[in-house]
Amino acid sequence: MNRILVVLLAFFSISVYSQNDEATLKAIYKQSLTNGQSYAWLDYLSNEIGGRLSGSENAQKAVEYTKAELEKLGLDKVWLQEVMVPKWVRGEKEEGEIILKSEGLTTKIDVNICALGGSTATGENGLQAKVVEVKSFEELAELGEDKVKGKIVFFNGAMQADLINTFEAYGGCSRQRYAGAYEASKFGAVGVIVRSLNLRQDDFPHTGSMGYLDLPENKRIPSAAISTNDANTLSELLEKNNNLEFYFKQSCQQYDDVLSYNVIGEITGSEFPDEYLVVGGHLDSWDLGDGSHDDGAGVVQSMEVLRLLKESGIKPKRSIRVVLFMNEENGLRGGRKYAEVAKAKGENHIFALESDSGGFTPRGFSFDCSDANLAQIEQWRSLFKPYLIHFFEKGYSGADIGPLKNDNIVLAGLRPDSQRYFDYHHASNDTFDAVNKRELELGAATMTSLVYLFDKYGVNQIQNARQLRD
Amino acid sequence: MNRILVVLLAFFSISVYSQNDEATLKAIYKQSLTNGQSYAWLDYLSNEIGGRLSGSENAQKAVEYTKAELEKLGLDKVWLQEVMVPKWVRGEKEEGEIILKSEGLTTKIDVNICALGGSTATGENGLQAKVVEVKSFEELAELGEDKVKGKIVFFNGAMQADLINTFEAYGGCSRQRYAGAYEASKFGAVGVIVRSLNLRQDDFPHTGSMGYLDLPENKRIPSAAISTNDANTLSELLEKNNNLEFYFKQSCQQYDDVLSYNVIGEITGSEFPDEYLVVGGHLDSWDLGDGSHDDGAGVVQSMEVLRLLKESGIKPKRSIRVVLFMNEENGLRGGRKYAEVAKAKGENHIFALESDSGGFTPRGFSFDCSDANLAQIEQWRSLFKPYLIHFFEKGYSGADIGPLKNDNIVLAGLRPDSQRYFDYHHASNDTFDAVNKRELELGAATMTSLVYLFDKYGVNQIQNARQLRD
Repeated sequence: MNRILVVLLAFFSISVYSQNDEATLKAIYKQSLTNGQSYAWLDYLSNEIGGRLSGSENAQKAVEYTKAELEKLGLDKVWLQEVMVPKWVRGEKEEGEIILKSEGLTTKIDVNICALGGSTATGENGLQAKVVEVKSFEELAELGEDKVKGKIVFFNGAMQADLINTFEAYGGCSRQRYAGAYEASKFGAVGVIVRSLNLRQDDFPHTGSMGYLDLPENKRIPSAAISTNDANTLSELLEKNNNLEFYFKQSCQQYDDVLSYNVIGEITGSEFPDEYLVVGGHLDSWDLGDGSHDDGAGVVQSMEVLRLLKESGIKPKRSIRVVLFMNEENGLRGGRKYAEVAKAKGENHIFALESDSGGFTPRGFSFDCSDANLAQIEQWRSLFKPYLIHFFEKGYSGADIGPLKNDNIVLAGLRPDSQRYFDYHHASNDTFDAVNKRELELGAATMTSLVYLFDKYGVNQIQNARQLRD
Repeated sequence: MNRILVVLLAFFSISVYSQNDEATLKAIYKQSLTNGQSYAWLDYLSNEIGGRLSGSENAQKAVEYTKAELEKLGLDKVWLQEVMVPKWVRGEKEEGEIILKSEGLTTKIDVNICALGGSTATGENGLQAKVVEVKSFEELAELGEDKVKGKIVFFNGAMQADLINTFEAYGGCSRQRYAGAYEASKFGAVGVIVRSLNLRQDDFPHTGSMGYLDLPENKRIPSAAISTNDANTLSELLEKNNNLEFYFKQSCQQYDDVLSYNVIGEITGSEFPDEYLVVGGHLDSWDLGDGSHDDGAGVVQSMEVLRLLKESGIKPKRSIRVVLFMNEENGLRGGRKYAEVAKAKGENHIFALESDSGGFTPRGFSFDCSDANLAQIEQWRSLFKPYLIHFFEKGYSGADIGPLKNDNIVLAGLRPDSQRYFDYHHASNDTFDAVNKRELELGAATMTSLVYLFDKYGVNQIQNARQLRD
């Protein structure tokens, strides 16, 4: 769509919402900021339950807690949806060391390390080997088996700091975490350590999923992350002494899949109960912190959407569901299961919104939808202006709702300010105190406002209006 | 200006900047985010110097440090501008207690308290009296001398949580802090305690300036702030027992004015050296924390503007000054002095930008200027879109640059995200760790970009262009 068309559309479509909508949004924001429930829910989820890795006892506690809380809201239905999830357990505290030998003297430097999710263990005695540093798979391939075999590969690609959207910077080097072991194993490496995906210089190692793909068991080498400070230290020491060795020990283990649940609540629509709108986040988290930003925030904001609709006296025309997905972090089983069941039942999902980018000040949404639907959303832009919500762009929505994608549905992702997200992502400092109450509540209100509009106007309003006009 | 005109202006003015400008902004942001200096400067200012109340030793250290750092940048001139400032000293640690007497038993509850800046002391034995709670000056006047005389007035007006711009919420109740003692004294109160101007519930008391205005010395009653948690506790206890007493002790003192300085650096313009653009923040801070957000952030961002211009190879046509103002917090002497000298010298200031709203993610600017100049700025809007800068509105600019106001100058204030600002404002937790490096750096780049555009195009470009077209 070119600029002229955008301007003209904006100009001719001023009245696609009503004054009543302005008042409704105002009431929603006020309720969230002055009488919100999201922060108290997050407090419990983070401080009473804590990290909620799929298959863990805490994940089960989170299922029970959120189901019980949804039941208090007076929704039309609340239920659990069974889903088998992988169970990976970190085991005892990991150890990491840089070992320098010089003139008969051995110096050991402690390193902040954590196993990547899905990794194998090192064995009881740990793993010690020389290190070869690379910043990309291309560099690794250039080195080849000659220089890699028997060594630990150190992936030190850093997130690109001059990208304004930090998720873009994350996307630029998350492959080294996910597939680093897979690629290094091909050249005979015995282990992999990865620079944490963090834009800040600090001492926190950041975990996250990795995968061995089709590698046979005996090629599955242990894989761990080290903090950004330690990555810099290691890189500097390697420049002076490429004979140094690295030692790490981890006792993580993959178990058989276990039964878990998506938690679902619904307000059934008064006019079009067979049209479904979904709002959700993921209930599981990594195990190092409390998963407050990732994705405790998205969970409580999604629950709050249904509470705010009820508290604001809104009676949805369409059926609105909150879905707390299990296992986003290391399997996406919950998202797949929800879509599979929805398809089997022939449920017509017209809109799905995910919050999984942290509980920071909301800036807007990214949409995975048709141009026509984006034009519809553009017309609501000025409704959001008083709340400083300005970002309405095409883009990625969310992992859990991705499996719902078809030609008609509008998929949306809440886009909070992203500057601080990777300071905490998958690390032990992703805790309740890193979440600001107002920022969280503004996100919940922003999500509720969009759900309200999609419920009221449906998803094809503009196309119909244009057809009428033409 | 009505909506149609705005749309048409936006439409016809697409090419009021060049592709070269896009590249320049990109270079500025990249330099700030990958090779910035602002965060290291702030580290020193916060952690090596600390709180910098006017007239203190630390304020003098900050003058010397920032002057020395500006001198390293290779500017055309760096100098100190003398200014006499008030000197108020907090004295030893304050004490506060709620005292409950019931059936011969006395219970004391410790309260987190701090003297307001400019307040008198309580005397060595402290001040103890019954408490009367009000939420506004109107409530106080209704109570009258009968119910107020001999008591401590407790101003418990809370910041309005449903205002999206937290500065608006601050403005709504900052009078109780500044003029609470003045108003209460009229009715014979012996002291004043004020609910901290903080949207969060926590234990930090927040200081800030207060004034006795024309009150005679013997009517100047001590005035202090208590934390939001303690304000709620006190209010709840008062409901049950309005005979409770409050005790506080503070030994603060006002001294004679002392000599201090504004710190100024200049890049002299190549084409129009007699047109001045100013960018600044205030070097003084309150004494409880390190003044990292208020206004260490604005100081280092303003210094960084000149460094980024030089590093980006920009040779300004006009003269660009960084001014680090002294004494914004409790006197505004630096801002007044700078304007006074500028006027006396007949310097033509065309633009001034202040950063004094914290080092958070920048959202845009507010402008105190003519409609025509705002229209000019609107035309640059899309240049800022890649950096998620979207807020360009008329409004308040900044306290220090306010005295420069005349009919022609454009005054601007950087507007960062405001949600967390009052969590830290004037409290002991306004420290370096509360500032995110990227958020600070984005602010510096955003300021530099606007200065670059005003330098390149001047302030009357649009008016001229329109005249040519007409």
